[in-house]
Amino acid sequence: MTSSHRIVLLAHGSSDKRWRETFEQLAAPTLQAFAGSRIAYMELASPSLEETIAEGLTENIIEYTVVPLFLAAGRHLRKDVPAMIKGLEQDHGVKIHLAPPIGENPLLGQAIKGAIALQLDQAMNPAP
Amino acid sequence: MTSSHRIVLLAHGSSDKRWRETFEQLAAPTLQAFAGSRIAYMELASPSLEETIAEGLTENIIEYTVVPLFLAAGRHLRKDVPAMIKGLEQDHGVKIHLAPPIGENPLLGQAIKGAIALQLDQAMNPAP
Repeated sequence: MTSSHRIVLLAHGSSDKRWRETFEQLAAPTLQAFAGSRIAYMELASPSLEETIAEGLTENIIEYTVVPLFLAAGRHLRKDVPAMIKGLEQDHGVKIHLAPPIGENPLLGQAIKGAIALQLDQAMNPAP
Repeated sequence: MTSSHRIVLLAHGSSDKRWRETFEQLAAPTLQAFAGSRIAYMELASPSLEETIAEGLTENIIEYTVVPLFLAAGRHLRKDVPAMIKGLEQDHGVKIHLAPPIGENPLLGQAIKGAIALQLDQAMNPAP
């Protein structure tokens, strides 16, 4: 990816600080791995997707890939987010690619299995 | 884990068949790895958690670990699910352990990074 393209992880958003902290932790490995990538929120938290695009435009970034941090696509991803993206493209003259929700990648199901295996192991062999 | 204990993956639920299919795929590696484990839904889809407990009771399973297939804890996991679990314990004489949401495990953040890396790779090197 060239520096004229930016990855934006899109989470739903919440007014609950602990909820946002969990998403920041989930996003951290990606934000560290991909230079310039960002996390943004659909609602109830900042930065919004629009604020993130506006920030990118100050760096002349006009192409974005939005990766939804959702386990599956419901109404938000089928209707609200595409409509929001269409509006942002028209208002700001940018190109925004909407990726499938992250939960559709098989790596997530494998990670869920791994996380549960670890948890069961810790429950049966607690640290001294 | 003995056969008197059952793991239940708890997803939010949706009336959208495609949403449920994504969660079934997310759950598949875990359901294959842990004998007797199940997926259940909080609302809008079946089986419900209560139906899953009732099924387990027919096999004399009285201890359950509920693992939320949620990326972070919001109102549902802080209030609704604990209240639902308390009611089920009282009504059915079972013991239900509520695990943290799966997204709090660092393996999930790593899987998100891996999924995005694969996606970028495919975008830049499309199959012939």
